[in-house]
Amino acid sequence: MFPESFEKTAKLLEVLPGVGAKTAQRYVFTLMKMSDEERNTLADALRGLNDLHACSCCGFLTAEEKCLFCNSEERDRTRIMVVSYDQDAVAVERTDSYHGLYHILKGVISSTKGVYPEDLNLDSLFKRLDGIREVIIATPFTVEGEMTAMYLDRVLKDKGVLVTRLAQGLPMGASLDYADDWTLTNALNNRKGMTND
Amino acid sequence: MFPESFEKTAKLLEVLPGVGAKTAQRYVFTLMKMSDEERNTLADALRGLNDLHACSCCGFLTAEEKCLFCNSEERDRTRIMVVSYDQDAVAVERTDSYHGLYHILKGVISSTKGVYPEDLNLDSLFKRLDGIREVIIATPFTVEGEMTAMYLDRVLKDKGVLVTRLAQGLPMGASLDYADDWTLTNALNNRKGMTND
Repeated sequence: MFPESFEKTAKLLEVLPGVGAKTAQRYVFTLMKMSDEERNTLADALRGLNDLHACSCCGFLTAEEKCLFCNSEERDRTRIMVVSYDQDAVAVERTDSYHGLYHILKGVISSTKGVYPEDLNLDSLFKRLDGIREVIIATPFTVEGEMTAMYLDRVLKDKGVLVTRLAQGLPMGASLDYADDWTLTNALNNRKGMTND
Repeated sequence: MFPESFEKTAKLLEVLPGVGAKTAQRYVFTLMKMSDEERNTLADALRGLNDLHACSCCGFLTAEEKCLFCNSEERDRTRIMVVSYDQDAVAVERTDSYHGLYHILKGVISSTKGVYPEDLNLDSLFKRLDGIREVIIATPFTVEGEMTAMYLDRVLKDKGVLVTRLAQGLPMGASLDYADDWTLTNALNNRKGMTND
């Protein structure tokens, strides 16, 4: 019903996560309200994504051969934090409490989705363990993330490197009443002495 | 944190309705999973939107001078349905129960948003009333849509054309219990004799 170029763009936008026919149409109407120039800028930006790829060392998105972490002179080169996704590294960076390197697995091991260790960005991790004192496993605290963490722990310990995992416990602002049993159990098992002990 | 072309695209995608920084980022990650070719196709589609504009006669989106409705030989050229948005005309078309022409106002009169009759696509409507027997007002059944309908009714009646409005009543599948008072009052006031009366 709509002109061809309208329908075509709407159809293409349906690849975006959570975007159905109706939302795609709304998006195109918004795009129609933009000036030709603004639309061209967006089109050029999309083409600009073609230059991005995974860092040859850690897998983080970059337009260069190596990413900003691997290229930086200021990072602690004795520590690697292994995360599942690029976003996770960015989330950790926001805290400004970690200054080591990262390694992006690009997923988690999942038997249901058919993702096995060989499908993850792992070979390059094993190749960069020289001089590494600690590998911090920061995969998500889900069944699949835990499975991935256990696998990594096993293979990395064999290589004689210290393997740690992010702490589990109650998040900031949590009330015990609303915490799930598993989180509460972990918080209890991982309890620490008070600082002024 | 992410490469520049990534951040730039994400920022541009935030113009889309309901899309914040987080969703825009998710969209770019989805775009990153596409091949260069697929991304170029989307970029070209965006540029293709530059060719679209409002039909010189009714205001519906088109790549030609006149839209598919105004150009068609098969439409009933004695009736015009006035709708607020292009999407509304498409919704009516889907029912296959109307075969006249359309006129797209591109909005509704709204004192709160500062939209007045002169901001709507109205002049071109008045210019095409020759030979028109009926104008069906199909603005939304909201306060602003009703206000627009009342305004149209007044100015069009002055021009001696039959003005009708879509019926108000209970929608298909509605239970009386859940209908709002206004809908129920309208359904009662607009009641009809049963067909086998």
